Amino acid sequence: MRLYTSCDLAFEIPTPTPFVLMLRPRSGMQQWITREEYRLVPSVPVFEFTDNYGNLCQRLVAPPGIFTVYTSAEVMTADDVDQAPGAPFVAVQDLPDAELSYLLPSRYCESDRFGQMATEITADQLVGYDQVAAIVAWLRANILFAPGSSNVPVSAVEVNIKQSGVCRDFAHLGIALCRSLTIPARMVVGYLYELEPMDLHAWFEAYVGGRWYTFDATQAELKGGYVVLGYGRDAADVAVYNQFGPAVNATAQTVCVQRLTEE
Amino acid sequence: MRLYTSCDLAFEIPTPTPFVLMLRPRSGMQQWITREEYRLVPSVPVFEFTDNYGNLCQRLVAPPGIFTVYTSAEVMTADDVDQAPGAPFVAVQDLPDAELSYLLPSRYCESDRFGQMATEITADQLVGYDQVAAIVAWLRANILFAPGSSNVPVSAVEVNIKQSGVCRDFAHLGIALCRSLTIPARMVVGYLYELEPMDLHAWFEAYVGGRWYTFDATQAELKGGYVVLGYGRDAADVAVYNQFGPAVNATAQTVCVQRLTEE
Amino acid sequence: MRLYTSCDLAFEIPTPTPFVLMLRPRSGMQQWITREEYRLVPSVPVFEFTDNYGNLCQRLVAPPGIFTVYTSAEVMTADDVDQAPGAPFVAVQDLPDAELSYLLPSRYCESDRFGQMATEITADQLVGYDQVAAIVAWLRANILFAPGSSNVPVSAVEVNIKQSGVCRDFAHLGIALCRSLTIPARMVVGYLYELEPMDLHAWFEAYVGGRWYTFDATQAELKGGYVVLGYGRDAADVAVYNQFGPAVNATAQTVCVQRLTEE
Amino acid sequence: MRLYTSCDLAFEIPTPTPFVLMLRPRSGMQQWITREEYRLVPSVPVFEFTDNYGNLCQRLVAPPGIFTVYTSAEVMTADDVDQAPGAPFVAVQDLPDAELSYLLPSRYCESDRFGQMATEITADQLVGYDQVAAIVAWLRANILFAPGSSNVPVSAVEVNIKQSGVCRDFAHLGIALCRSLTIPARMVVGYLYELEPMDLHAWFEAYVGGRWYTFDATQAELKGGYVVLGYGRDAADVAVYNQFGPAVNATAQTVCVQRLTEE
Repeated sequence: MRLYTSCDLAFEIPTPTPFVLMLRPRSGMQQWITREEYRLVPSVPVFEFTDNYGNLCQRLVAPPGIFTVYTSAEVMTADDVDQAPGAPFVAVQDLPDAELSYLLPSRYCESDRFGQMATEITADQLVGYDQVAAIVAWLRANILFAPGSSNVPVSAVEVNIKQSGVCRDFAHLGIALCRSLTIPARMVVGYLYELEPMDLHAWFEAYVGGRWYTFDATQAELKGGYVVLGYGRDAADVAVYNQFGPAVNATAQTVCVQRLTEE
Repeated sequence: MRLYTSCDLAFEIPTPTPFVLMLRPRSGMQQWITREEYRLVPSVPVFEFTDNYGNLCQRLVAPPGIFTVYTSAEVMTADDVDQAPGAPFVAVQDLPDAELSYLLPSRYCESDRFGQMATEITADQLVGYDQVAAIVAWLRANILFAPGSSNVPVSAVEVNIKQSGVCRDFAHLGIALCRSLTIPARMVVGYLYELEPMDLHAWFEAYVGGRWYTFDATQAELKGGYVVLGYGRDAADVAVYNQFGPAVNATAQTVCVQRLTEE
Repeated sequence: MRLYTSCDLAFEIPTPTPFVLMLRPRSGMQQWITREEYRLVPSVPVFEFTDNYGNLCQRLVAPPGIFTVYTSAEVMTADDVDQAPGAPFVAVQDLPDAELSYLLPSRYCESDRFGQMATEITADQLVGYDQVAAIVAWLRANILFAPGSSNVPVSAVEVNIKQSGVCRDFAHLGIALCRSLTIPARMVVGYLYELEPMDLHAWFEAYVGGRWYTFDATQAELKGGYVVLGYGRDAADVAVYNQFGPAVNATAQTVCVQRLTEE
Repeated sequence: MRLYTSCDLAFEIPTPTPFVLMLRPRSGMQQWITREEYRLVPSVPVFEFTDNYGNLCQRLVAPPGIFTVYTSAEVMTADDVDQAPGAPFVAVQDLPDAELSYLLPSRYCESDRFGQMATEITADQLVGYDQVAAIVAWLRANILFAPGSSNVPVSAVEVNIKQSGVCRDFAHLGIALCRSLTIPARMVVGYLYELEPMDLHAWFEAYVGGRWYTFDATQAELKGGYVVLGYGRDAADVAVYNQFGPAVNATAQTVCVQRLTEE
C-alpha cells in the first residue's frame, strides 16, 4: 500500500542543545520511499551519518527559542506482513556475522535474566518461528497494553514486574525472551497505519528461517502498513531523538499516517 | 542558496536488466536535503545499500518496456565554495585511515604514471592547496573543455594524450596528478547551478589542510551551487547508473537545477 | 615495556557448542603485537570477523569432550599511561560519529539513572578529564574492591547498591557515571602487568580532550603495562568468550603476564 | 595441511618514509593462524587498521637507515582447493551488496574493454564456474608465464598485448575477463606451498554458485597450500607494502613456505 507519514516535533530550547535525530526512513526490501521532506525551523547546519545498525542519523545543535522539526514521507510498503509458522531456528554458527550482536543482552533487554521463563513460555513449540509466536501470544495474554502510560523507557525486567506497558515495553520484553533462547531479536521504531491511538510505534523483529520477521504483540493481528524509521538492539539505540545536556522535552509531537491512492 | 534539482532517466529495456543507481543525495556538512522525490515507473522492488564510499545506492531489476526514473530534491547548499590558498600538505602518516584509499591509482586515474608531470606542473608551489590550484590552472590552460564530446569514460592517460575532454575527464586527470603527489583526491558527481550546458556534472576534491576542498577545472571561477550525488575514486565508483548485461543506454536524460527563494 | 601474555581456557563440552571468542589482541596506537599464538585442541574450523567496535572475534563450534584454547602474545606497550588533568570536555556536536554510541546507556551501564549522582560527585570540577578523575576517586573511596567475588556481570545500578565489586563492576559504574555527564566512556578488557591477583582485567576509557584516556579505579596509581583484548559499551560486548546453548563454564582459566627483556 | 610461512623485507631508507604494509594474514574459513610473528627493526610505532576489503593494514613511518620487517606465521590451510564445475552464474540482483564492487573495472583490470574477447573465450560454456575455468585454460594456453619478468604492475590490456607476464599479470587479465561477463572477481596475494620459484604469489577468486572459488592460471593443477595475505580489486589494493614519497625499493625480500608436521 502507499502511505503518507509525517512526524512534527517542537521544542522550547533554553540554551544551544545538541541533538541526534533518527527521522529519515531508509528504502529497503520492505519499503520504498518515493517522496520525503525534512525541514528544520529555524534552519541550522546538519550532519548526517550512518550508525552501527545502518540507520541514517542527523546531528545538529538546536538554537535557543522554538525549534521545530517537520518530516514527512510517501512510502510504498507491503500490504501484508510475511509470516512463516514452522520456520526453523538458525543455529548460532549459521547466523550472519552482522546478526550476532542481536543475541546479546542490552540496556532494556536483559536477556541474561529470562532463560527459565522463555523456556516455559515456549515449551512444546517447534524451535524457531513458533517459539517467537508463542512469546507474542504470552505477551498479549499477560501484559496489559496501556498506550501513553510511560514516557521513560523501562527495561524488560521492570515490564515483567509491572505487567503492563506501552508498545516499546512489549517489544523490550519480547526481545529479551527471544534472545534468551538464542534467537536474534531487534527493536524497530516507525509508523503503523491505523494504529490506535496514532503515534510513533515500536515493535520487534526476530531472525528465524534465514531472515528477519516482524512481530508486534500490541496488535491482535499482524497486518501490513508498517514504515520503519530505525533498527537497533533496544530503545537506547533507536530514539527518534536523543538530546544531550539539560533535559528538553518535545512541547508538541504530531504524528500522522494516511493511505494514499495508488499512483 | 536553496536549489531545486532533478534528473529524469528513461530506458527502453529489452529484457529484465539489473541496475545499480546512485541518485539519492545525502545530507552532510555541505548540503542539507529538505525535500526529495524518487519515483520509478513502473514501480519495482528496490533495495538500497551504502557502498564503501558512503553513497546510497539503489539496486533493482528493470522490467522489459519503457522504464523511467524520476528524481528531484530541494537542497540547501553553500553560496560559496571554501578556498584555502596556503593550506598545507598532510603527511601520509597523519591522514585518517579512511582517506588512504584515495591515494591509490584507480581505473581512470593512473596516478602511478604522472609523478614527473605533476612535479613539473607544481614546481615552486607550496606543498598542499597551492599544488592542487596549480594543477587546476594547468588543466584550464592545456585541456580543451568539450562538453558532450564523450560518452564512454576514458582514463587520465588518455585524456592527457587527447588534450580535450568532458568534465569527467578533467576530474580524472586532476585526481591522477594530485595522487601522484601523495595528495588524496576523489571524484564527485552531482549538480552545479548555472552549469552550461545543463547536465549532470563531475568535479574533484583534494584533501589538504586537514579536510576535503572542492576543485573544478571546468569553471573559470569556483562559485557555490554544488549538489553532491556521490563520491568515489573515479567514474567507475560513481556511475549515476550502472547497468549489467546487454548494454541499455538511456533514451532520455533530463537534468534541471533551479534556484528557489529562501524559505 | 615488552610483555608476554597468555590466557588458556579449558571447557568440558557435553554437546556441540557454538562459541564466540575475543582473544586476539589488535595492534594499535597503544600496543604492538610482535608475536602471537592461538591454538585450539582439538583443532576445529574457525571463522574470524570484526565486530561493530573493531574487535577481532573468533566463531567456532566446540566438539564434545575437553576443549582447550591456548593463546599467548608478545606485546610492546607503553611504560606509562597518558594522563591529562585539565583536558577539556568535548561538546557532543564536536564528537566523531563513531564515539556517539558510547554516550548511550547499555546493558550494564544504566547511565540514564545516574545524572544526579554524577553531578554531585563531580561538583566543582572542571568539565572533562577532571570530572572523570573525580569519579575514579569516588569509586576508590566508596566501592570495596573484592576480586573474585562475582562471576555473573551485574549492572552499575546493582554495583552502586552493593558498594563492592570486581574490576568489571568498577568499570561499569565508572562508565555509567561518565555517560550521564555526556562524556563518552567504554569498557576495555585485557591484561595488566603485575595485577594482583593475576587474572584477566577490565577497566574503562573516557573520551575527553579529543581522545580516549585510560582510567582504572581498581589501581591506586595508573601505571603502564595494559594490553587490550577488546573494546565495547560494557561487558555484554566484550566477553572474552560467549558461549551459546546450555551453560558451559570454563573448568580452567590460566592467565599469565610477564615482563620480557627489551630486544 | 600445516604450513610455516615467512616474508622478510629490508629497506635502505634515506629519509623518514611512510609505509602501509599488508603482511598480517587473517584467520577465516579457509585458513587458521595458530602462530604469528611481526617484528620491525628498529622498532617504531605502528597503527593497524582494517581497509575496505577487510584486510589488516599496518601504518608506520620508517626511519632513515636500514629498516627490516620480519613476519612469519603458522597456518592451517586446506589440503585441497574446492572446485565446482557446473556451479551456476549468480545474477547481479542476487549478489550480496559487498560483492558488487568486484564487478567494476579497476586500475589494472579494465573489464570495460574485454566484453567481446571474454564472450569468445567462453563460448559454449555453461554460465558460471565453467566460464571462469575456460578463461583460466585460455590464459594458460596463450600467455607465457615468466616469473620475475616484471616489477611494476601493468594492466590487463597491457598483459594481453605482451602475451606474457608474472602471476600478478595472469590474475589481472583473468579478473578483467570475468568481470566483463558480470562475474565478480578479486585479486588475492599471499603464499603458495611449493611455488617455483618461491616468492610471494598472486591469484584470483571468482564468485559463482553462491561463494568465492580460487583460480590460478599459473599452476597446471589447482592444489592446496594457499595462504592469503589480502584481498582487493587488483594489485593497487593489495600491495604487500605501499611506500609514499621518494621511491624506496626493498633491498632484500626473502620468502619461505615450509610444511610442518601435524600437531
